Amino acid sequence: MRKINIGLLGFGNVGQGVVKILRERKQFLSEKIGLEINIKKICDKDITSRRSITVDKSMLTKNPKDIINDPQIDIMIELIGGIEPTKGYIVEALRKGKNIVTANKALLAEVGKELFAVAADCSKSIYFEASVGAGIPLIKSIREGLVANKFFNIFGIVNGTSNFILSRMSDANCSFSDALREARAKGFAEKDPTLDIEGIDSAHKLILLAYLCFGRLIAMEDIFIEGISRVSLADINYAKELGFDIKLLAIAKKDGESLEVRVHPTLIPLSNLLSSVKGVDNAIFVSSDLSGKLLFYGPGAGQLSAASAVVSDVVDLTQDIKAGMFRPTLNIVPDTSIKKLRKIEEIESRYYIRFMTVDKPGVLARISGILAKFGISIASVTQKERRKGQSVPIVMLLHEAQEKKLRAALKILDHLEIIKEKSVAIRMEET
Amino acid sequence: MRKINIGLLGFGNVGQGVVKILRERKQFLSEKIGLEINIKKICDKDITSRRSITVDKSMLTKNPKDIINDPQIDIMIELIGGIEPTKGYIVEALRKGKNIVTANKALLAEVGKELFAVAADCSKSIYFEASVGAGIPLIKSIREGLVANKFFNIFGIVNGTSNFILSRMSDANCSFSDALREARAKGFAEKDPTLDIEGIDSAHKLILLAYLCFGRLIAMEDIFIEGISRVSLADINYAKELGFDIKLLAIAKKDGESLEVRVHPTLIPLSNLLSSVKGVDNAIFVSSDLSGKLLFYGPGAGQLSAASAVVSDVVDLTQDIKAGMFRPTLNIVPDTSIKKLRKIEEIESRYYIRFMTVDKPGVLARISGILAKFGISIASVTQKERRKGQSVPIVMLLHEAQEKKLRAALKILDHLEIIKEKSVAIRMEET
Repeated sequence: MRKINIGLLGFGNVGQGVVKILRERKQFLSEKIGLEINIKKICDKDITSRRSITVDKSMLTKNPKDIINDPQIDIMIELIGGIEPTKGYIVEALRKGKNIVTANKALLAEVGKELFAVAADCSKSIYFEASVGAGIPLIKSIREGLVANKFFNIFGIVNGTSNFILSRMSDANCSFSDALREARAKGFAEKDPTLDIEGIDSAHKLILLAYLCFGRLIAMEDIFIEGISRVSLADINYAKELGFDIKLLAIAKKDGESLEVRVHPTLIPLSNLLSSVKGVDNAIFVSSDLSGKLLFYGPGAGQLSAASAVVSDVVDLTQDIKAGMFRPTLNIVPDTSIKKLRKIEEIESRYYIRFMTVDKPGVLARISGILAKFGISIASVTQKERRKGQSVPIVMLLHEAQEKKLRAALKILDHLEIIKEKSVAIRMEET
Repeated sequence: MRKINIGLLGFGNVGQGVVKILRERKQFLSEKIGLEINIKKICDKDITSRRSITVDKSMLTKNPKDIINDPQIDIMIELIGGIEPTKGYIVEALRKGKNIVTANKALLAEVGKELFAVAADCSKSIYFEASVGAGIPLIKSIREGLVANKFFNIFGIVNGTSNFILSRMSDANCSFSDALREARAKGFAEKDPTLDIEGIDSAHKLILLAYLCFGRLIAMEDIFIEGISRVSLADINYAKELGFDIKLLAIAKKDGESLEVRVHPTLIPLSNLLSSVKGVDNAIFVSSDLSGKLLFYGPGAGQLSAASAVVSDVVDLTQDIKAGMFRPTLNIVPDTSIKKLRKIEEIESRYYIRFMTVDKPGVLARISGILAKFGISIASVTQKERRKGQSVPIVMLLHEAQEKKLRAALKILDHLEIIKEKSVAIRMEET
């Protein structure tokens, strides 16, 4: 039976999962794919610490070149993360004729254009199923399963940490910082959780999904990103009273010739399936013209879940290698009907707004008057409990308005003496 | 650019969708896959009726041999349905070196063993993505995306007609026959809806899913099948009061060395995602050891949705043909830890039970006494409104019990003079 040799760059959590699966399922996989997958080399800067899985010392190296320059290695799995020096290793490996499997969304989102070009130039592939939604076979589904489709939109909960925090705040009625503390204790948040809670990780993943659906690798600076660190328990509770939940959504939405690409906390109806997504689970709606609105849902993180996706990529590549062929990833074809990216100021959205006002007559008339001047119409208003001497929250749901106009109105409103704090605005989506 | 020739057997609804997609997306697909897909021949017993799409008359034939014997045709798409003569056409086409794409779940469920054996013998593939969940890329996800996984269970709403009827009954508070009438009027139910409402179509699909997950092509006679035609509005409403919905589920469940495979109306908690699945939508939970519990959700029927799945299969096959290779479908590997199929009498389940009783003291004591004799324990009891001279419904939720014991208890109970009608028992699942 022909043997396909793998080099593994990064022997951390997911890397150990990959080794475990490839070892324990060796025969199972061989029977399915008709060849043997062999881990030939594992590279990590730390090759002495005890791991959850023991490997022969001769397989371990601290030098990536031992993988990159080994002509017998067919596939390099990259699980070290980061942009540099990772990018350089991948370029070198491609040039040396290796196919790449990676879970590195930051890398592909930031410098994917260059990497995919090198891969095409070398007639090699970069597979990245584990980079979004871990073990949910989302990337394969979009690229291969929905190959004939033109896409309308993507609405996804793609960051487990943020979703854990928001669902804890909602379910346990606790503050952002308490929920973050709990996420840390459970290992769901990193020591520095910025990438997750500020929406950057979601944006990285959104870039990859939009690339697959719309054929464009959008730059980070062209995505509007707002994280969850300013979502307050008060707003979660007010939203709930109105029949909504707040989720961090990654959104890509085609509208005529424009594409909107954004990440932000979003009010969605409690009846929406996405509002049932709790903890670190991920769920992604993908709408397209032939297959309709599909939902992919499941654990969005986890050692074996991510490793399972890595192994599925390896298996796909082995089939191509077995045929002695260059079977690239199916080509990505740009959706030529998209002429421009819509800036956040230009989007139209419904909004949830909370004003903190002084407690005196005429306040509501003043606010609604200014909104009306900007053509913004109010769908519902709730004036919250008032306590003597304290500011009074007024919560509004607005009909569709242009963001630019809303921002202009809020700028004026926030300067009025009747408004005691910067007002809160959260976009709404029906998905 | 190399051309791959297709022969289409069956120019009905989905067939026309396939032609439409392959024609309108010709260049789009060519750019993605690096070759041209060409429909060379279309066979149907009716080649004169006007279709939603016009094709050159020279492409049409009434004789399947014109496809089967054409050496230039690489792939035969089978969309005529039925077992015979379809099976014969597929066998012949495989022997003539063609790969097959089919949406025919009945065929594969009933005679798949033989067909897959012929395909293997001829080194050809049978692809069948459209046979379950239409455009939801479920089969590819299980076979390729989850290639390294061992599976625990499948819980699926896989029949749109039944789900439409049950959700209409629940949402519009109408009877089974009213909901069926509405389904017919909307084109969601066939004139003879037996296959759908009696669970047979669900069983066919379950056979294919179990085959992919557990590596065994289970015979129809080994599946317990109960349809929805005896689900009453009363039970749907009682279930709802208790926090449950009734759905027709296709279930395959591994428990130790046993595999349970069954289709029946099932009480599921209203909080379960499956209970939000309305109308003709499909949703399938697939649980496995590495990737966890995944949900695939979307429209389970529709011309373009099914055609999209057919085209994705065609694209997969073209990639293999392009490489001049026999790349079979990844081999199916039996889960050898499964030693037997568990018969329905042997399963353990929770149950919803409704008794129609006479209105007099001691009835409840009598019923619970008999249940207790069989070791069956009651989780909750609700005695419903009584009207003078009419029977009184008593609704119970039972703790886990063996079906055999429950059946024995109900047999005795149903013969008591205090019980006025055959009691209703519906299995419960948490999924």
